[in-house]
Amino acid sequence: MKEIGIVAIGGYEEIGRNMTAIRIGHDIVIMDMGLRLDRVQIHEDTDVERLRPSELISMGAIPNDSVMKDVDGKVKTIACTHGHLDHIGAISKLAHKYKAPIVGTPFTADLIKQEIEAEKLQGTKNEVVTMNAGKKMQVSSDVELEFIRVQHSIVDCVFAAIHTPRGVILYANDFKMDRSPTLGQPPDFARLKKLENEGVLALITETTNAGISGKTPSEQIAKDLVWDVLMGTEETKSGVLLTTFSSHIARIRAIIEAAHEMGRKPVLLGRSMEKYWGTAKRVGYAPKSNDLPVYGRRKSVDKFFKRMMQEGKDKYLPIMTGHQGEPGAVLSRVASGETDYMIESGDKVIFSAGIIPQPLNKSNRHIVETKLKMRGARVYDNVHVSGHACVEDHWELLRMINPEHVIPSHGTFETHGKYLSMAEDTGYELGYTFHIMRNGQELLLP
Amino acid sequence: MKEIGIVAIGGYEEIGRNMTAIRIGHDIVIMDMGLRLDRVQIHEDTDVERLRPSELISMGAIPNDSVMKDVDGKVKTIACTHGHLDHIGAISKLAHKYKAPIVGTPFTADLIKQEIEAEKLQGTKNEVVTMNAGKKMQVSSDVELEFIRVQHSIVDCVFAAIHTPRGVILYANDFKMDRSPTLGQPPDFARLKKLENEGVLALITETTNAGISGKTPSEQIAKDLVWDVLMGTEETKSGVLLTTFSSHIARIRAIIEAAHEMGRKPVLLGRSMEKYWGTAKRVGYAPKSNDLPVYGRRKSVDKFFKRMMQEGKDKYLPIMTGHQGEPGAVLSRVASGETDYMIESGDKVIFSAGIIPQPLNKSNRHIVETKLKMRGARVYDNVHVSGHACVEDHWELLRMINPEHVIPSHGTFETHGKYLSMAEDTGYELGYTFHIMRNGQELLLP
Amino acid sequence: MKEIGIVAIGGYEEIGRNMTAIRIGHDIVIMDMGLRLDRVQIHEDTDVERLRPSELISMGAIPNDSVMKDVDGKVKTIACTHGHLDHIGAISKLAHKYKAPIVGTPFTADLIKQEIEAEKLQGTKNEVVTMNAGKKMQVSSDVELEFIRVQHSIVDCVFAAIHTPRGVILYANDFKMDRSPTLGQPPDFARLKKLENEGVLALITETTNAGISGKTPSEQIAKDLVWDVLMGTEETKSGVLLTTFSSHIARIRAIIEAAHEMGRKPVLLGRSMEKYWGTAKRVGYAPKSNDLPVYGRRKSVDKFFKRMMQEGKDKYLPIMTGHQGEPGAVLSRVASGETDYMIESGDKVIFSAGIIPQPLNKSNRHIVETKLKMRGARVYDNVHVSGHACVEDHWELLRMINPEHVIPSHGTFETHGKYLSMAEDTGYELGYTFHIMRNGQELLLP
Amino acid sequence: MKEIGIVAIGGYEEIGRNMTAIRIGHDIVIMDMGLRLDRVQIHEDTDVERLRPSELISMGAIPNDSVMKDVDGKVKTIACTHGHLDHIGAISKLAHKYKAPIVGTPFTADLIKQEIEAEKLQGTKNEVVTMNAGKKMQVSSDVELEFIRVQHSIVDCVFAAIHTPRGVILYANDFKMDRSPTLGQPPDFARLKKLENEGVLALITETTNAGISGKTPSEQIAKDLVWDVLMGTEETKSGVLLTTFSSHIARIRAIIEAAHEMGRKPVLLGRSMEKYWGTAKRVGYAPKSNDLPVYGRRKSVDKFFKRMMQEGKDKYLPIMTGHQGEPGAVLSRVASGETDYMIESGDKVIFSAGIIPQPLNKSNRHIVETKLKMRGARVYDNVHVSGHACVEDHWELLRMINPEHVIPSHGTFETHGKYLSMAEDTGYELGYTFHIMRNGQELLLP
Repeated sequence: MKEIGIVAIGGYEEIGRNMTAIRIGHDIVIMDMGLRLDRVQIHEDTDVERLRPSELISMGAIPNDSVMKDVDGKVKTIACTHGHLDHIGAISKLAHKYKAPIVGTPFTADLIKQEIEAEKLQGTKNEVVTMNAGKKMQVSSDVELEFIRVQHSIVDCVFAAIHTPRGVILYANDFKMDRSPTLGQPPDFARLKKLENEGVLALITETTNAGISGKTPSEQIAKDLVWDVLMGTEETKSGVLLTTFSSHIARIRAIIEAAHEMGRKPVLLGRSMEKYWGTAKRVGYAPKSNDLPVYGRRKSVDKFFKRMMQEGKDKYLPIMTGHQGEPGAVLSRVASGETDYMIESGDKVIFSAGIIPQPLNKSNRHIVETKLKMRGARVYDNVHVSGHACVEDHWELLRMINPEHVIPSHGTFETHGKYLSMAEDTGYELGYTFHIMRNGQELLLP
Repeated sequence: MKEIGIVAIGGYEEIGRNMTAIRIGHDIVIMDMGLRLDRVQIHEDTDVERLRPSELISMGAIPNDSVMKDVDGKVKTIACTHGHLDHIGAISKLAHKYKAPIVGTPFTADLIKQEIEAEKLQGTKNEVVTMNAGKKMQVSSDVELEFIRVQHSIVDCVFAAIHTPRGVILYANDFKMDRSPTLGQPPDFARLKKLENEGVLALITETTNAGISGKTPSEQIAKDLVWDVLMGTEETKSGVLLTTFSSHIARIRAIIEAAHEMGRKPVLLGRSMEKYWGTAKRVGYAPKSNDLPVYGRRKSVDKFFKRMMQEGKDKYLPIMTGHQGEPGAVLSRVASGETDYMIESGDKVIFSAGIIPQPLNKSNRHIVETKLKMRGARVYDNVHVSGHACVEDHWELLRMINPEHVIPSHGTFETHGKYLSMAEDTGYELGYTFHIMRNGQELLLP
Repeated sequence: MKEIGIVAIGGYEEIGRNMTAIRIGHDIVIMDMGLRLDRVQIHEDTDVERLRPSELISMGAIPNDSVMKDVDGKVKTIACTHGHLDHIGAISKLAHKYKAPIVGTPFTADLIKQEIEAEKLQGTKNEVVTMNAGKKMQVSSDVELEFIRVQHSIVDCVFAAIHTPRGVILYANDFKMDRSPTLGQPPDFARLKKLENEGVLALITETTNAGISGKTPSEQIAKDLVWDVLMGTEETKSGVLLTTFSSHIARIRAIIEAAHEMGRKPVLLGRSMEKYWGTAKRVGYAPKSNDLPVYGRRKSVDKFFKRMMQEGKDKYLPIMTGHQGEPGAVLSRVASGETDYMIESGDKVIFSAGIIPQPLNKSNRHIVETKLKMRGARVYDNVHVSGHACVEDHWELLRMINPEHVIPSHGTFETHGKYLSMAEDTGYELGYTFHIMRNGQELLLP
Repeated sequence: MKEIGIVAIGGYEEIGRNMTAIRIGHDIVIMDMGLRLDRVQIHEDTDVERLRPSELISMGAIPNDSVMKDVDGKVKTIACTHGHLDHIGAISKLAHKYKAPIVGTPFTADLIKQEIEAEKLQGTKNEVVTMNAGKKMQVSSDVELEFIRVQHSIVDCVFAAIHTPRGVILYANDFKMDRSPTLGQPPDFARLKKLENEGVLALITETTNAGISGKTPSEQIAKDLVWDVLMGTEETKSGVLLTTFSSHIARIRAIIEAAHEMGRKPVLLGRSMEKYWGTAKRVGYAPKSNDLPVYGRRKSVDKFFKRMMQEGKDKYLPIMTGHQGEPGAVLSRVASGETDYMIESGDKVIFSAGIIPQPLNKSNRHIVETKLKMRGARVYDNVHVSGHACVEDHWELLRMINPEHVIPSHGTFETHGKYLSMAEDTGYELGYTFHIMRNGQELLLP
């Protein structure tokens, strides 16, 4: 029987810097190489693109892959399940160490290529391969990699099913069980149910929201909430500013639709908006037309605000960066009065995002909101629903695929514990069929 | 110029036991006479129907209307804005002291009549008068009472506009700015906007959710959330139990629709369900047909569960009392194993309600949830949206009717303070145009 | 090499119902048999003394010792480290199954005997043996049991060191590192340091407060806080009521001293006060003299209050049960006006206890405090320090005895995780030298 | 009868930027002129000393004294009750507008002089007058100013009693009822009790901690807690770093004593330490001798750490700035590895301070603590007690001086509400004898 090892490299004790190696005999598949942004943020003036891997590792910002020296095998493939930084943000720092192609869905692969190009220090030469959800590829003589469609707060997100002689290993980070997504199709339940018949040896899955009761509302609810805030008002002449996740193409498209419904021109503002929207257009997740103005650089953003003030606030719906209060983001600059946009009493500022619960984000958001309110803005917070499965979604997935072993990842010890309680309710046992790992450990599946 | 006094009798320092007297010269209109349930609950074995007014007053359970002795005028009318207990629950204890008719919309008036009949001690003789939203009645030679349609978590809820020689006094407890209600029409914005032209002397309004940012989502969102939980699952054979507010007819009707969609028979269980659904049928808010089984008494509930277990859990969707974990409610009895309903692993229990944030409710809910989970139930909490306006809804109302004076009610000092901050942003000033009152005080409008 | 197994029976996933079996070859020592009170409380009208073990197990109230059937060995000794109910409260329900003596320090042993006598159903025949801190006894040919003095919120608390051929197993539940206790001596650091030289194979230790930073303040701080509240006031004529843990003899003695200093007569009120103070007198932890009035039964409590009201509130300092708001406790009865004690504006009620963070306690405390305040009492909450080690105390113990393996107990998954982080900082590794167990599992020490 | 007005200029809606004008006929006494630091902090790169008053006012950082234009009278005196920045920090920005001397106790007056000297823009010419606690001065023909000794977290703190023809106005910001202070004498209760006989027309008092139950523990408790952390350990060779409030001379002296007891040399590090300790020496609150090394400038701090690393960590106890995680403070620089001090596993870092509950402080503390822990430090948080009165201390003061009117200040609407509840319990009534004011309002005492 082939020995199968699960190597927890990063993300097993925290949210961020995900990296897992799955070893089938001597063949290794690496899943994700992510960045832990809050560990970067606590250092002033850090420019990730100019930092060496060793520095980033000692900061706890990228996975410490030194454990791989002790793992007996060869990396055949690096696969990333979606394009968020905590899943692909360390590619440019670590991938060059492994002579293996990097596989992702089209949107993810495009982002990976951009990251590699932006990197200042490492000359990453790995081939970047595109594979669509629903497809498989051979990793080695007896290992196959399959992508299965799911939903998340970024488009083109997949589960990775690694087919081994001993059964499937399902890598399920991150996802939501969304049956009414506003962009793309629901998760491929039919395929997931078939997996059970093939036999799932192990499930590696996120626990981010495992401590939240019930199920995560559909993205359709988020769309309805945003529309209600935008259109459900008698004060139709006020300025309205909106900020959301740049990578959340579905949300942005819902807002664009709303803008048209309101008779306002949508505009995307900020470098990050430019990057992700450009990617979405290239890959086909956004219309190719150039009807939608997108201003990335500071100068063009400032020029736009000048024009907006001249033409009338009620002519535009600017969608901008800055939902976490990031210093330098467009909304932060508006709040500080650094642009020509003059906030007046009654202007609305809509955060179509929650606060990522880190002290730095809370502080940054507090600063931006305080400044906005002192200028007279009305703030709408958390017009948003999460992209992560809640505990009953996990329950459903677990019962649907019925894995022999479960390994929680992408969470903290606390969230793993919440997942464990749920898993115990359906028969799993800690230490036997349920395995809590710490970064740097390898588990041999019994 | 007629002297106008606002008398804060109850609800100005708490949630519950609302009562306000509005004096125009010597004519008085009393708004609401409510019960503070959490003050009743802290005493064991209290039977409200058998307690004297003086006892309930000293418990802080009903408004202390002794202040009325010092108010120089005659009560002409008692009006109630909706049928929740914190607005009508003291009618049977206090109304008999005033020789005045009680006015409510049809649903509210019906509930008031039932309350008066159930009362064991006082012989309340006041006439109960029905007036629809959109209608007016003469209170005295120069005072008129008008009901204006709004939305809340109970049907047939209104604002009361009291037309006086010095302008309108708008009594706005409780409400939400729901533009897509699932039962009835949105608030009558057209009428509210006209009020501004007539001149609004004072607004008396709730501050319950004034500390919550943004606007309250529509009841449509609640409906979508409930439907998603009920139908968005692959586990379609499990038992499903649901609990929600008995008086929330809109919600119950949405759940009944969902049950039909699922191919399950909806059933209402519990005395309180029987009471409010019966009222809704009588008044026309629920279909008159007898297709929907409603079991109020304990015995008939128990008989139903026996049948359900025989016919199959997947045949029924029981909608029951007990969302706050009330001891003796149907869900509490199920949780304790006192009925024939056997909870099995995977059965769903859906709370289409939030926890009213009082330590007793938290404790009761904890007990019920713990018991349910120990038996294997999956619990879906807070599949719900609030019926109270959030801060931006208040902002809109304030700007729409532009009152000269604002008096916060139906809240605590803390929530009044949140409202004050918002009101200051649009020009009101504490002590001059914004008045914080304590129970037992009279404010003479300048 | 002798096989050594650690069997987690209860308390490994919760606070309460502690029970651990330590198997050395075929010889077994059972540590603690405790009750989980909050699981009893959620059922109305439960009388623990009349419930069968199987019922209490299915309620989650006592350890599920059915796992012992699969453990290959014979129970030689049952040892309890101190007299709290979560350590001895299941003795009368479970001990009779094992033909083995029960060992405890004098205060603990006395309480165990009382429990056995009070039990209504089981005829517990086990011998109860007294052993002082600092002493050892032979358990089997190659196993010895030693008690080592520590401090906790009850007198006569010890660690149990189980000497085996492979080294010491230290069972360290519960304790604080108190260097200035107000009753008894500090923990026996000299002995603990020597243990390291003998070699500690494993440490089993509580994690209750492992999530709290720093170190637990000394009981001396609690005494100073209580004294300051009692004597640091210009209002020296008011009534003062005080409630604290009945079993916390050190605290009670500190309060008695304060009463004398104030010129008030201390009085103990409530059944539980009578029980623990009586035990303390018998064993020598309280003066044998009968100067201190102790009234246990309801009638004698009521009589005392009558006398106190006649003689003057400033003559007495009653110390009573009810710090968690327990219904029926003396303070709850005072709050409800069921005694002759009339609360007047300015009377002080001092809780020399924290709220045990369970929803039921919060609710009960809320009820009692609300009633007290409505009658005019001034409430002093949490005049108290904890009896459980905080994270830096754990750090010290860990470094002092340097065990090969660590097994967290007496806590939740979350608190075990906090302890793990600390232990990792000093070199332990999950799954290798640090072992998280679930109730019902046996760990074979490698 | 002389008209008496209380003008709320700053600090009536927030913690920070305190300023009150008390007008007796045409004579005005201004109490305090403070800075609101958190409003400065949200702007990057702000140098308060180089900002104009108008800019600081629009930032909400200093009191908006434009209301003074409408107050009919002449400022005779500016008095500051203690030397914290929220009481004296705007002196250099606002005092020059008023032709009046500034009065403070010796420690306070010295700090005021330093502030005036450091100011870059305004040429403040006001005389700074020193008056000791227990003394009086004539302000105008019928107004006297008296300083009454109290305790707070800074030395030389006083209440100001303003004697007017209509009775005393007691300005009581900030204080604690400390009967066992470690430096100086307890509050002058004898004098306060006499005030009642003279008749107190109004009390203006802080509500900072009015929402906290019970009474504030004595500074003696803080000293005991610090000593216990420093000396209650078996790990006596580790490095120990400590940070606390630079202006808290009593605390620093307690720590210095502990250092001697431990056989370590105490050292003060950081500019702010240098400033306040220097002031304390000058005024007589610290020994004049030069035994205690104090290093203010960055270079000398760095040199000290180099020497400490050479001589041995166990030789020194450095007491440093940085308890709120302030960027650039000594502790922050240590945490970032910018000094020669090398943190090793087991080094202790003691925060003898709480976190001032602002998002920025929480974020800064999080950053510093994260960095310290990543380097191996053990963190002791909140080894501290507050310097502000809790609700029962307020109760005592209120009953002791029995004022006709109460005006809460130095707090938020929420904390004023907590104070109101307490005051109502002893007979005050909102709007009649209890007055909630907003910044910019004048209240005429009836």
